[in-house]
Amino acid sequence: MSFQKLDDLCRRLEALEHALAILGADEATHMAVGGGEKRAEAMAALSGMYHRHATAPEIADWIEAAETEALNEDQTAALREFRRHHTNLTCLPADFVERQTAARLRCEQLWRGLRARNDWTSFQPALEGVVTLVREEAAMRADVLGLSPYDALMEQYDPGNRAADITPVFAELKAFLKDFAPQALEVQAGRLAKRPLKPLSGSYSIEKQQALGLAMMEAVGFDLTRGSLSVSHHPFCGGVPSDVRITTRYRTTEFLSALMGILHETGHALYEQNLPQDWSHWPLGKARGMAIHESQSLFVEKQIGRNPAFWRWALPVVDTHLDENWSLDDIQPHVHHVARGLIRVDADEVTYPLHVILRYELEQELVAGRLEVADLPEAWDAHMRDYLGLSTIDNPADGPMQDVHWPGGAFGYFPSYTLGAMMAAQQWAALVRDHPDTDEAIAKGDFSTANEWRRDRIWSQGSRWSTPALMERATGEKLDASHFIAHLQKRYGG
Amino acid sequence: MSFQKLDDLCRRLEALEHALAILGADEATHMAVGGGEKRAEAMAALSGMYHRHATAPEIADWIEAAETEALNEDQTAALREFRRHHTNLTCLPADFVERQTAARLRCEQLWRGLRARNDWTSFQPALEGVVTLVREEAAMRADVLGLSPYDALMEQYDPGNRAADITPVFAELKAFLKDFAPQALEVQAGRLAKRPLKPLSGSYSIEKQQALGLAMMEAVGFDLTRGSLSVSHHPFCGGVPSDVRITTRYRTTEFLSALMGILHETGHALYEQNLPQDWSHWPLGKARGMAIHESQSLFVEKQIGRNPAFWRWALPVVDTHLDENWSLDDIQPHVHHVARGLIRVDADEVTYPLHVILRYELEQELVAGRLEVADLPEAWDAHMRDYLGLSTIDNPADGPMQDVHWPGGAFGYFPSYTLGAMMAAQQWAALVRDHPDTDEAIAKGDFSTANEWRRDRIWSQGSRWSTPALMERATGEKLDASHFIAHLQKRYGG
Ligand SMILES: [Zn+2]
Ligand SMILES: [Zn+2]
Repeated sequence: MSFQKLDDLCRRLEALEHALAILGADEATHMAVGGGEKRAEAMAALSGMYHRHATAPEIADWIEAAETEALNEDQTAALREFRRHHTNLTCLPADFVERQTAARLRCEQLWRGLRARNDWTSFQPALEGVVTLVREEAAMRADVLGLSPYDALMEQYDPGNRAADITPVFAELKAFLKDFAPQALEVQAGRLAKRPLKPLSGSYSIEKQQALGLAMMEAVGFDLTRGSLSVSHHPFCGGVPSDVRITTRYRTTEFLSALMGILHETGHALYEQNLPQDWSHWPLGKARGMAIHESQSLFVEKQIGRNPAFWRWALPVVDTHLDENWSLDDIQPHVHHVARGLIRVDADEVTYPLHVILRYELEQELVAGRLEVADLPEAWDAHMRDYLGLSTIDNPADGPMQDVHWPGGAFGYFPSYTLGAMMAAQQWAALVRDHPDTDEAIAKGDFSTANEWRRDRIWSQGSRWSTPALMERATGEKLDASHFIAHLQKRYGG
Repeated sequence: MSFQKLDDLCRRLEALEHALAILGADEATHMAVGGGEKRAEAMAALSGMYHRHATAPEIADWIEAAETEALNEDQTAALREFRRHHTNLTCLPADFVERQTAARLRCEQLWRGLRARNDWTSFQPALEGVVTLVREEAAMRADVLGLSPYDALMEQYDPGNRAADITPVFAELKAFLKDFAPQALEVQAGRLAKRPLKPLSGSYSIEKQQALGLAMMEAVGFDLTRGSLSVSHHPFCGGVPSDVRITTRYRTTEFLSALMGILHETGHALYEQNLPQDWSHWPLGKARGMAIHESQSLFVEKQIGRNPAFWRWALPVVDTHLDENWSLDDIQPHVHHVARGLIRVDADEVTYPLHVILRYELEQELVAGRLEVADLPEAWDAHMRDYLGLSTIDNPADGPMQDVHWPGGAFGYFPSYTLGAMMAAQQWAALVRDHPDTDEAIAKGDFSTANEWRRDRIWSQGSRWSTPALMERATGEKLDASHFIAHLQKRYGG
C-alpha cells in the first residue's frame, strides 16, 4: 500500500529532523566552541540525506497511487499536506538549489562583516546575486503552484496567504499607524511628565532570573517534562515537540527583557508541545506556518504578557524571586514603552508593523523587478521618513543591511511578523468574546481557559487548514485589522 | 575511483555517528525526561540508516577495486581498517542480528528489574537465550575471521587480542594477586592503626567541585574549547573528538569520588581529542579499541591521579577551590584505599583484576559450551571464594547478575578493563624509563612530557596497528604483567 510507504518515509524523515533540530539547539547552547566545524559538516550531510530521502524519484508515484487508496479522514489530510510539502521541495532543479545555496551562504557571510562596517557598496553586488536568483526561484515556483511570483514565495512560509488579501489589511493598518504612532508617543510623554519612570536597573543574578523564568513558563502552560530553558546568544525556540528547547539571554542589571523574551519563546513552545502527537511524523502534524507560529508567541508575549491583568498576578511572583517590590504603576510604563527607532527587532508593538510593511512593500518591488538593489538605500530611506520620520540614507547598516533575511534569500517571510501580531489580537478578541472573564482569570494566574481555547482551535489542528482558513475557523472571521487597531488604541491611546 | 567512493561513504557515516554520539550524550545530560520515547525512535532509525549505508551491497566491490588502486600509505592503512570494519559489520546475517538485538534488549530490561529483586530463577532463561545466540555469533564470526570463537568475539573490541596471549599473562597476575591482596590489606591495617583515617566528610557545593574538576581537566591537558563537563547519573566520556562530552556525578558530602571520576573520563577524553583529525571519518582515525582506551583513562586516573607526586601539586589546587587544608598523609590513605568486596565497579586497583579474571575465565567456558548458565551461580561463588575469600551463593544479584555486559550480549569485553590497567602501568614504566624526572614534573603540575609521550605513541596512531602491536611499538615490549605487578608492589606493598 502506497500510503504506508509514505508513512514509513515520514518516520525516517522525522528521525533526521529530530537529529537536525537537537544538533541545532545544542550548537547554540551546549556545544564546545571548537566543535563548530565538524558540527556544520555533520548537519550539512544530514540535510543532504534528508533531501535525498524526501525527493527520491519513486515518491511521486507513491503519492499518485495513495490518492486512489481507501484512506480515512486523517490520512487524506496527511496525504494532501504531504503532496504540498513534496511539491514545494521538488519544484526547483537540484543544480539551481546548489547555486542558490552557495550565493546565499556567501552573501550572509559577507553581510556579517560588511554590516559592521556600514559598507553598502561592497555588499550590493552580493545582494544583487541573491535577488536575481530569488526572481528565478519565484518564477519557477509560480509556474508549478499557479500563483503570482511573490505569492509563490509566501506560500512556503504561510500556505494560503496571498498579497491580494494582505495588502488591503496592511494598508489600513499603515494608514492608522502613521497617525497613531506619534499620538502614542505624545500620550506616553504626558504620562511620564506626571510620573517619572522608575529605572529598571538593579542587580539580578542569572540563577534567580532563570528560576523566575521557569516559574513563569510553567504557570502559563509550558510542560517542563517535555522541554527546557537554556542560555544562548540569540533567544530561540528549537528542539522537537517532545523536547522543546527555548533559550534566552540575561542581563544582570535588569530582568524585564529576559523575562519578556522567555514569554515570547514560551508562546512558540506551547504551540509545538501541543501539536497532535500521533501525526508528529507527517507534515500534517507540524505547525501551520510562520505567521500562525508568531501569533502564538505574540499571544503570550503581547496579549497576555503585556496585559495589566497579567501583571497583577505576575508582580508578586517577580518580587518573590528577585526580592523586589514593584507596583503596577511602576512596571507598566516599561512593559508598554513606545519608541521610534531604526531597528525592527528593537521596536515595540506600535511601531513594529511599520518596519514590516516597509519591507513587505520593498521586497514585492524587488521580486517583481520594479525595484533594483542599487536603488534600495534611497527607497528604504524614503519609506522610513514617510512612516517613522527617520532617515537611513547615511546609514545603510540600519537600513537595507539591517536584517539577515534578504542576504539569506528569505523573501516573503517578513509579513509573517505583523500578520502574527494581528492574528494574536484577533484570537484574543475572539477568546474574550467567548470568555469575558479572561482578564480576571489571568489576574489570578489561571491560564487554563486561554490555553484550552488555543489548544482546540489552533494547536491541535496542526497543518490541517491553510493559514487564512485556520484563522477564520478559529476566530469566526477573516483576518481583520480592526482587532489589532482596537488593541493598540486601548493600550496606547490614552 | 573506488577509494574515493569509500571516502565519501565514510563522510556520510561520520555524520550519522556524530548525530548518534551527540544525541546519546544529550540524552544523559540535557534531554527533557519526557523526550525519551521520541529520542529512542530517532536513534533507532538513525542506527538503521547507518547500518544500511555501511552494509550496502556495492561496498564489497568498492573495497576489492580499491585494493588494486594506487594508494598512499595512509590510504592503504585506511582501506585495511575499512575492510576489517566492514567484515565485522557484515559477517552476521541480518535476521540473526535482529533476533539477537531483540533477545539482548529483553534480557537487559528483565535484568534491571530482577537484579533489584535478587531473582536468579526468573533471570536464568533470558540469559540462556542470550548465551545460545552468543555461541552462534561466535561460531559465525570465527568462521569468517579464521579465529577461535572466543577470540572472534574479543576481536570486535580489541583487534589482535588473543586468549593464547592473554591467558598466561592473566595467570601470572592472578597468582600474584591471590597472595598480594591480603598482604596489601594487612599493610593498610597496620598503617591505619598508627594513623587513624581522617574522614573525607565535609560540605562541598556542586559549583565548587565542578570548578575544581574543570581546573584539573585543563591542567592535565583537556582542551576546553573542544569538550565540556556535565552531570549525569552514570559518568561517561561521549560526544565526538571535536566536542568531547565527559560527565560525572557529585556528592556534596565528599569530593574525592567525583574528582577521581573526572580524571578517569579525562583520560578517555585526551585520547579522543588527540586522534588524527584528518582521518576522523575513517575507521583508521578512530581509537584503537577498548583495552587501549581503558589504558588511557587508567593512565590518568591511576598512574597519574593516584600518584603521590600528583597530589603534591593537586592538594593546593583542591584547597584553593574547596577551602580545605588536607595534608598528603591525610589524603593518601583515601587515594590508595584497598578493600575486598563483591562489586567490580567499586573495587580498587589491587582487587579489580581478580573480578575481571573471574569473568574472563567463566565467559570463555560459557562461549565454549563447557559451562551452562544454570551452573553459573555455583561457578561464580567458587571463584569468588578462591580469589577474594567471599561467597555469593545466596546473593546472585552481586554474583553473576552483577553486570549489564552479559545480559547485553557483550562477551569478550571484560578482559579490556584489566588489560587496560596493565597497559597503563607498562606505558608509565616506559615513560619513566625515557624520562626519569616524570614524578618531579607532575609534582609541579607539568604534564606536558607525559602527554607528548602518549600523543606520539598512542593518540596519533589511531587504528593504524593491532592492539598488541600498538603496545609493543609504544613501550618496546609485548604486554608483560611485571610492570603492573611492580606498580602494585610499590604502591601497596608496604
Ligand atoms: Zn517569535
Ligand atoms: Zn573507563
